[in-house]
Amino acid sequence: MNNRFINPSGFAENLPAAQILEDGLKAEFATIAESFGYTHLETASVEYMDTLASKGDVSKEIYTIGRALGEGEESTESARGLHFDLTVPFARYVAQHQGQLDFPYRRYQVQKVWRGERPQKGRFREFYQADIDVVGQGTLALEFDAEVALTMGQILDSFNIGGMTMHINNRKFLSGLLAQYGINSEDTLHAIDKLDKIGKEAVIEKICSEHGVTADSLTDLFTIFASHVAASDVSAYLETINGDNELLAEGKRELTRVFALLAQNPTFENVSFVFSPAIARGLDYYTGTVYETTINGLEKYGSICSGGRYAELASRFTTQQLPGVGLSIGLTRLMSIITSEDLIALDRTSPSEVGLCMLQTEQETATLETAHVLRRNGFNVEIDYRTEAGLGKQLTVLEKKGIPFAVICEADGWFTVCNLATTAKQKVASIEEVITLVTII
Amino acid sequence: MNNRFINPSGFAENLPAAQILEDGLKAEFATIAESFGYTHLETASVEYMDTLASKGDVSKEIYTIGRALGEGEESTESARGLHFDLTVPFARYVAQHQGQLDFPYRRYQVQKVWRGERPQKGRFREFYQADIDVVGQGTLALEFDAEVALTMGQILDSFNIGGMTMHINNRKFLSGLLAQYGINSEDTLHAIDKLDKIGKEAVIEKICSEHGVTADSLTDLFTIFASHVAASDVSAYLETINGDNELLAEGKRELTRVFALLAQNPTFENVSFVFSPAIARGLDYYTGTVYETTINGLEKYGSICSGGRYAELASRFTTQQLPGVGLSIGLTRLMSIITSEDLIALDRTSPSEVGLCMLQTEQETATLETAHVLRRNGFNVEIDYRTEAGLGKQLTVLEKKGIPFAVICEADGWFTVCNLATTAKQKVASIEEVITLVTII
Repeated sequence: MNNRFINPSGFAENLPAAQILEDGLKAEFATIAESFGYTHLETASVEYMDTLASKGDVSKEIYTIGRALGEGEESTESARGLHFDLTVPFARYVAQHQGQLDFPYRRYQVQKVWRGERPQKGRFREFYQADIDVVGQGTLALEFDAEVALTMGQILDSFNIGGMTMHINNRKFLSGLLAQYGINSEDTLHAIDKLDKIGKEAVIEKICSEHGVTADSLTDLFTIFASHVAASDVSAYLETINGDNELLAEGKRELTRVFALLAQNPTFENVSFVFSPAIARGLDYYTGTVYETTINGLEKYGSICSGGRYAELASRFTTQQLPGVGLSIGLTRLMSIITSEDLIALDRTSPSEVGLCMLQTEQETATLETAHVLRRNGFNVEIDYRTEAGLGKQLTVLEKKGIPFAVICEADGWFTVCNLATTAKQKVASIEEVITLVTII
Repeated sequence: MNNRFINPSGFAENLPAAQILEDGLKAEFATIAESFGYTHLETASVEYMDTLASKGDVSKEIYTIGRALGEGEESTESARGLHFDLTVPFARYVAQHQGQLDFPYRRYQVQKVWRGERPQKGRFREFYQADIDVVGQGTLALEFDAEVALTMGQILDSFNIGGMTMHINNRKFLSGLLAQYGINSEDTLHAIDKLDKIGKEAVIEKICSEHGVTADSLTDLFTIFASHVAASDVSAYLETINGDNELLAEGKRELTRVFALLAQNPTFENVSFVFSPAIARGLDYYTGTVYETTINGLEKYGSICSGGRYAELASRFTTQQLPGVGLSIGLTRLMSIITSEDLIALDRTSPSEVGLCMLQTEQETATLETAHVLRRNGFNVEIDYRTEAGLGKQLTVLEKKGIPFAVICEADGWFTVCNLATTAKQKVASIEEVITLVTII
């Protein structure tokens, strides 16, 4: 094989077993988002560069598209590129179609995005993101800050990849808290966002040198930053935090309300909501609640699901104020964590639940009829037409694909059902009995 | 709004109601393909140009991708482009991963493709295709020529957009038939493929001038070309066609067998299989069975689902012979036919089946609990938190979105259920009664 004929490096694609796993995650995402009333949005992959080129430092990562031109030909078309996230196309879409959407507009979006990065482990040039957002016209109720967390919490819970913690904080609270300690700067938020990476000492040193405060005066602040408070205890905990500035009070009020709403809902098996005062999120974009999610015991991978509340979705595209709140999963990255850490078994390469083995051409009609009846009863069924291969070879392939059952239509009108996991065989007289045997409860 | 901030022309994207419709078609496609054991494949969107640039005349339609480079910077990366169909990436994938796939390999693929065409009505630059194919290593049984038709037939049937006809022919039969009339040329196949467009007279003239035959000698041939034979009559019909060349005999044998298999399966409500001897398919690629599908009464749109049997999937990428058979739907194009011709009503912009109206903050706990129970029972539920809006405004929004039911948790612990289609209201005491009322059978 000419080794140019492979997929380009960094452009993610799956073998069948991993694809089945990824499809399962996407199906859970869509089903649960829709159960909360989120409408599916899929934007075009291509945008005008004017639309994409807002965030200065990201522009080198944008893939531009062009036609393969003949010699001497020149393009007359406007510059266009592939979207590098789902937020920019979503903002453009909402601004463009405001008159045709109902607000608050709940949407979910699961699409590929492209970034011209140098590929390295865990980094991709073409990968999936999965977002939910709610956007209001003019205002958006604080209830949605709880609803998006609850929706995404249930989605992550359904993935069944072990315990996860959704860390929630509030930018107003954090800025207000810093102000109490004489610190007023967006820069400090960025430093705190890197607490885990650069360490407490480095952050304290940076704050002291920039704001003329002493390390001793920050002891209480860093005690607060080190805390993680369970949803039901947040209200009591916040009462212990003193301070008289308006921003802090507003942040405390919002956090109290969001956690009160979350605490009213049933708890999840795998996901817990925690107030973590040191969560900042890097982007200036966020103005209220912020979220980060880590897998318990696998915190080294950082946040697998993040987001926040923003005051303006689309100020570049429209004069209408569109506040919103949302959360995003880096789905391809999560897939690579799941497979590297073996969090879910990759045990099937076929969707089939039943493999029908055809051993004699005379049994063709019975085999086609059995396939039809099983499918009508909701089973995925594949037929092996290779009568010449014989039963042994046919069963080997079915087993290799992870198909749980094989069924043979016998010449006497009976059916043989093989459980490929236990290798147990059973001969039954009716299709109803076959259905009972191949039904896994 | 700055009118640069819109989606670029020809790059398809939907408003919510059309998206719900398209998602429904995709879900049927995937569910039915999987019920026949087809495994989902999704390839990267980007391929090396060497991989894409085989089909000479299509290369001008390929969108190349590149990084937005700074002044003086030069790209060091190999030329890459967006795939323009699903066949080329599928062929590259199978050649690349042969050792990790089980053959015969049944796969379905539903992805966007990109073509740098001048956009016009019904033509897109970014659009969905939905393909199924089965590929063998060395050989592939003729049974699959029936299976792909049956699978795609059931998929099209499930779309419920009215009657459709899948026209089936065989390239060996067609070439053998032409040979009987002294015509030996691939060019003639292309001419016959355009029968509908350029008319019978023009095709006859072309054949006479190129092959030195008389129009009179072609009368029987064009009678055959004008026929459409129902699946159950194909065997008898083929016996009436005389000829002694091997290709014709082989084509007749294959057609007889494929239609015999199709006739053994239950008929569909909306889709019928018909033998149409004039179907040629333009591409030289096909070597046996060929398929085209038209919507009854809307034949003007041409084929909405086409395909065929091919001897070599990936001869450019591998020395291994990989024969296959497959069918493809131009999904975005079909969507545009469905919406232009009003074949399915666009009546919902939200996935919700129930809208919960919150009218008093005191009812918050009851409302959240009701939402939770309804979701656990499989309903999609959205909450309107705007207590200040009042019931009238809330119901207006739910109705506009096409949500069938509204439920209000009353202060006395009872529930009011409004059927938004009939405007009937009913007050019930238990959540079980709510569930009964909002269940549409």
